[in-house]
Amino acid sequence: MGGISPLAPRSVPSMPPIDGVRLATGAAGIRYKDRTDVLLALFDVGTTVAGVTTRSLCPSSPVEWCRDKLRTGRARALVVNSGNANAFTGKTGRAQAAFTAKLAAKAARCQINEVFLASTGVIGEPLDASKFDGVLDQLAVQARGDHWLDAAKAIMTTDTFPKVATAVAKLGKVTVRINGFSKGAGMIAPDMATMLAFAFTDAPLSAAVLRALLKSEVEDTFNAVTIDGDTSTSDTLLFFATGAASKRGAPKISKANDPRLKDFRKALHHVLADLSEQIARDGEGARKLVRVHVQGAVSKKSARRIALSIANSPLVKTAIAGEDANWGRVVMAVGKAGEPASRDKLAIWFGDIRVAAKGARDPAYQEEKVAAYMKGEVIDLKVGLGLGRGEDRVLTCDLTKEYVAINGDYRS
Amino acid sequence: MGGISPLAPRSVPSMPPIDGVRLATGAAGIRYKDRTDVLLALFDVGTTVAGVTTRSLCPSSPVEWCRDKLRTGRARALVVNSGNANAFTGKTGRAQAAFTAKLAAKAARCQINEVFLASTGVIGEPLDASKFDGVLDQLAVQARGDHWLDAAKAIMTTDTFPKVATAVAKLGKVTVRINGFSKGAGMIAPDMATMLAFAFTDAPLSAAVLRALLKSEVEDTFNAVTIDGDTSTSDTLLFFATGAASKRGAPKISKANDPRLKDFRKALHHVLADLSEQIARDGEGARKLVRVHVQGAVSKKSARRIALSIANSPLVKTAIAGEDANWGRVVMAVGKAGEPASRDKLAIWFGDIRVAAKGARDPAYQEEKVAAYMKGEVIDLKVGLGLGRGEDRVLTCDLTKEYVAINGDYRS
Repeated sequence: MGGISPLAPRSVPSMPPIDGVRLATGAAGIRYKDRTDVLLALFDVGTTVAGVTTRSLCPSSPVEWCRDKLRTGRARALVVNSGNANAFTGKTGRAQAAFTAKLAAKAARCQINEVFLASTGVIGEPLDASKFDGVLDQLAVQARGDHWLDAAKAIMTTDTFPKVATAVAKLGKVTVRINGFSKGAGMIAPDMATMLAFAFTDAPLSAAVLRALLKSEVEDTFNAVTIDGDTSTSDTLLFFATGAASKRGAPKISKANDPRLKDFRKALHHVLADLSEQIARDGEGARKLVRVHVQGAVSKKSARRIALSIANSPLVKTAIAGEDANWGRVVMAVGKAGEPASRDKLAIWFGDIRVAAKGARDPAYQEEKVAAYMKGEVIDLKVGLGLGRGEDRVLTCDLTKEYVAINGDYRS
Repeated sequence: MGGISPLAPRSVPSMPPIDGVRLATGAAGIRYKDRTDVLLALFDVGTTVAGVTTRSLCPSSPVEWCRDKLRTGRARALVVNSGNANAFTGKTGRAQAAFTAKLAAKAARCQINEVFLASTGVIGEPLDASKFDGVLDQLAVQARGDHWLDAAKAIMTTDTFPKVATAVAKLGKVTVRINGFSKGAGMIAPDMATMLAFAFTDAPLSAAVLRALLKSEVEDTFNAVTIDGDTSTSDTLLFFATGAASKRGAPKISKANDPRLKDFRKALHHVLADLSEQIARDGEGARKLVRVHVQGAVSKKSARRIALSIANSPLVKTAIAGEDANWGRVVMAVGKAGEPASRDKLAIWFGDIRVAAKGARDPAYQEEKVAAYMKGEVIDLKVGLGLGRGEDRVLTCDLTKEYVAINGDYRS
């Protein structure tokens, strides 16, 4: 459908291995032909895990599986498939998830409750997990420390490019690594990690520490990205820590407020921010990345709600697709957010160009200047409310005819 | 932009006069060329009025004007213009609204606070009310009891057809009439009357009665229509009662719970339902009218929220545009509504065809049957939650490439 997004990153980082993580991908023929559609990740004994899953009240079977197994905080294997989300598949779905985990446990030689699952693709079609039989055994043999980009490719659905990110951090005196990959291009809205994303580190962190780190760092990364306001039944973010860096002298951390986590937290934020921005850059049919920045709100929470009201407005998004600095629609979106706002204090900028101030068009406003700005690939849309110090940012993309084409034709 | 909506009503009702109402339309050259863009309605002395306006916190100047004047409950004139919404135009906007009212009061020979205003069109551009100078005087001379369809035409913006409706009711032993017209095709969401709409009757009803009737009848009509979840800064519904039928013996009603209002209430519901359905039928780029019906929810309020979550989901709406009975996306929209729902009790129908039940695809589901159904012009989408007796319906339309084209090009 029109090739790679014009907003795709210009280069892909080289992904180093993470000690204790081995990956392999294969073609199980779930839905797609001539491409990989299943990923197996194997973790060394002692790996901890934490996760965030969709707030949807109709979650997929793999989401239910993960929620249950996350309580132990221990992981040895992860199976992700694309093509079928195993969502809204009733008892069959639960049975197929359990069968997938059983096959993976056999392949990984671990307990079934140390296996984590994620599925993405069509909803409501029964998943035939028997297709993983044999395939997972083979992948367990092939699994190696590289293959990160292959992993990102195997889990794509309508994504036009694979999404990977990596960072290093100092933990004590030792350098540890964080790698991640994600998928998602539509059905993206906050209230969870909004798609599938996986992060991995060799740092020796307890499951409780992982949980706390995820909870705080997801708020301004994955939860601040919206494509269409739609929340998937499958959204899953899992974070695995092998602890292998302890062999190199990294300190074991078991408290989330440990000051030695400072640099690690920054690195994790970087990886999650990078992966989530790539999702906005791959928004279905997107031609422009839109950064909505709200300041002067009564609180951060209020700023977030107003920013989301703008970022989810079809009228704002279609105007940006048409390279039209239609700030009247921004006013509309502020007005409908239901948060404190005073028309006569409102100011709106596209880039550095102030188009509106004090409840009216900026007297210095020049249509040509802003028209030229709107031709750019990244649009910074700033709203000043003039009420308080609440500030927030969310990422989105424009709404184009291609979005409609992609989503009107997806199943056919 | 592609002519009249394929969902436009096949016929336009003949609109009888309403005693005490005279209408005229003209071309003030606000924005459009070669078409009418201003309506003047004149009311006999004694006319009462009530209204509902947008919940936007950034309302237009005419909305502020009406809110203020509605407190008196008396009306002698209404001026509506298209092409410019006089919204987010600051002090100038307020001055231009007041100037318009002054010109109308002169033309109608009434008090300035008996004049009501509505403007629709581009936001943020100053409205030049001096263009009404002379024009309103002329219209006051030309005003007549017919011209209902002309009135509906003069207030159109991206509408592809004029929207009128009419009904009769018995009040005591006398037949009274209700006429109405509306406009709106995008930026339509509930939380008010969602666009411009005007209703008129010759029944002798106090302003308090009008207010109570509007409040209750708007809930399942205008407030149950959504095109894109966007709420305009200008949404206005005004209801005028001339009382002229009292000369024919109609009883004066001053209490909302008067049992003699029963038939009138039904007729008003019919007019408002008709006008609001026409708005859904003229949804920008719409090719299909979608009726979302939720039953088995824990309450009506909960059913409404779930129905709106479905009706505002870009993924559901694009699937319907693609004639794809993608009930997986319906599950997604139910799940994200945040209202009580149990996946394993959920059932979904397209028309009479049950596609999903008890948390999975209906075993009897046949793709061909539902594919044939999806080719129709009206799609009935029903969701059963199996939890309680809460039930509600909302109207929307599909989301097509034309919606994006219309809204990406509107200002250019």
